[in-house]
Amino acid sequence: MSTVSAGFSVSLDGFVADEKDDISALYGWMVGAVQQDTELDDMEYTDQGKDANEARSAAFGAIVSGRRTFDLAKGWGGQHPLGVPVVILTHEVPTEWANDGKPFTFVTGGVAEAVAKAKEIAGDDTVAVCGPDVMRQCLEEGLLDEIGVDLVPTLLGKGVPFFAGEGPVQLEKVSADDADGVTHLRYRVVR
Amino acid sequence: MSTVSAGFSVSLDGFVADEKDDISALYGWMVGAVQQDTELDDMEYTDQGKDANEARSAAFGAIVSGRRTFDLAKGWGGQHPLGVPVVILTHEVPTEWANDGKPFTFVTGGVAEAVAKAKEIAGDDTVAVCGPDVMRQCLEEGLLDEIGVDLVPTLLGKGVPFFAGEGPVQLEKVSADDADGVTHLRYRVVR
Repeated sequence: MSTVSAGFSVSLDGFVADEKDDISALYGWMVGAVQQDTELDDMEYTDQGKDANEARSAAFGAIVSGRRTFDLAKGWGGQHPLGVPVVILTHEVPTEWANDGKPFTFVTGGVAEAVAKAKEIAGDDTVAVCGPDVMRQCLEEGLLDEIGVDLVPTLLGKGVPFFAGEGPVQLEKVSADDADGVTHLRYRVVR
Repeated sequence: MSTVSAGFSVSLDGFVADEKDDISALYGWMVGAVQQDTELDDMEYTDQGKDANEARSAAFGAIVSGRRTFDLAKGWGGQHPLGVPVVILTHEVPTEWANDGKPFTFVTGGVAEAVAKAKEIAGDDTVAVCGPDVMRQCLEEGLLDEIGVDLVPTLLGKGVPFFAGEGPVQLEKVSADDADGVTHLRYRVVR
C-alpha cells in the first residue's frame, strides 16, 4: 500500500518560500546558491542535497503537484528532476502538455482523485505531495500519511506559510536527523 | 558574559499555546497530563521533563518574564519553579509583590532595561527569556543570543504564535536532539 508523503524545506518560523516565492534561502543546503530564476540545468546539488534527494526519490513512485508549482517550474523542462511521473492537480488541462508523451497526468477532479491516480501509478512506492497548497488539501481530506520537514535555521519573517490553520492534527515523530545546518524531521499523521 | 536565551515548546505549525492560552498539548512531554488550571503543586514532571529542566535551569542565573506570564502563573506562588530570580517587564509595579522579599524585580523601562537588569543578576549565567512576546521584543532589539525549541509533534491549527513577523534573522543550529516525541533544538542568533 502506497504511503502519501509531503516534504518541504521550512524556515524555523514556518515558511516554505519568501514573499516573492523565492526559495533560495531555504534550499541552499540542497542545491547551493540558487536564485529564483536559476534554470534547472544550472542547479548543482550539494553533496548533502544529493544524498538526501537520492534516498528520498528512490522511494517515490509518483508525485502529486499543484498546477502553480508545475507552471513555476515550467513543467520541469518535460521531466521532473526526480525522474518520477507527476500527477498535476489543475482546473484546466494544458493542451500543449496533455498528449506529447511526457510523464505528466493532469487531473481536474480534485485532490482525492489526484492522489488516487498517483497511488495507481506508484503501486507500493511512495506518493510524494509537492506544493504546500496540495499538502494542506491532502491533510484536510485525511489523505496524508507522512510529513517531512527539513527545518532550516532562519527566520524569514514573512512568506508562503507551510501550514495555514489545519488542525488539530496529532502527529507521531518517525525520525529526527541532525544534519549539517538543517534538521531532517519525519512525522506520521495519526488518524 | 551572560547569554540571553529563549526556550519554548512549540507545535510543528508554530504555536506556543492554543487559542485559549492552554499549553497542555505542548508541555505533556515535560509535565504529563496538565490542564490549563492545574495548580503548580499538582504538576509532576515526567522523567524526560525533569532531566531537561534540571539541565537547563542549572545554567539559568535569571529569568525575564512578561507581566502577562507572571499574572497567568499567579506569580508562581512566590517562587519560580526553576528557583531562579525573575525580572518582570511591566507597565506598572504591583504593590502587593514589590516589597515582600520575593525573588522578583519589576522593570517598567522596557525590554532592554529588563534584560540589562537580568544580566546584572545572572552574572556569567544564562538569562532565560520567558513568554513569546518578550522573546520577540528581545529578537527585534538585538538582545537575544539563543533560541531553544522543543518541537512537539502536533498541529494545533490556531493559537498563540511563536514568531509573528520577526526577520529576516539568520540562525545557526547549535544542536538537535531526537528525544522521545519532541525534538530539542537550539539555535544561535547570528548578528
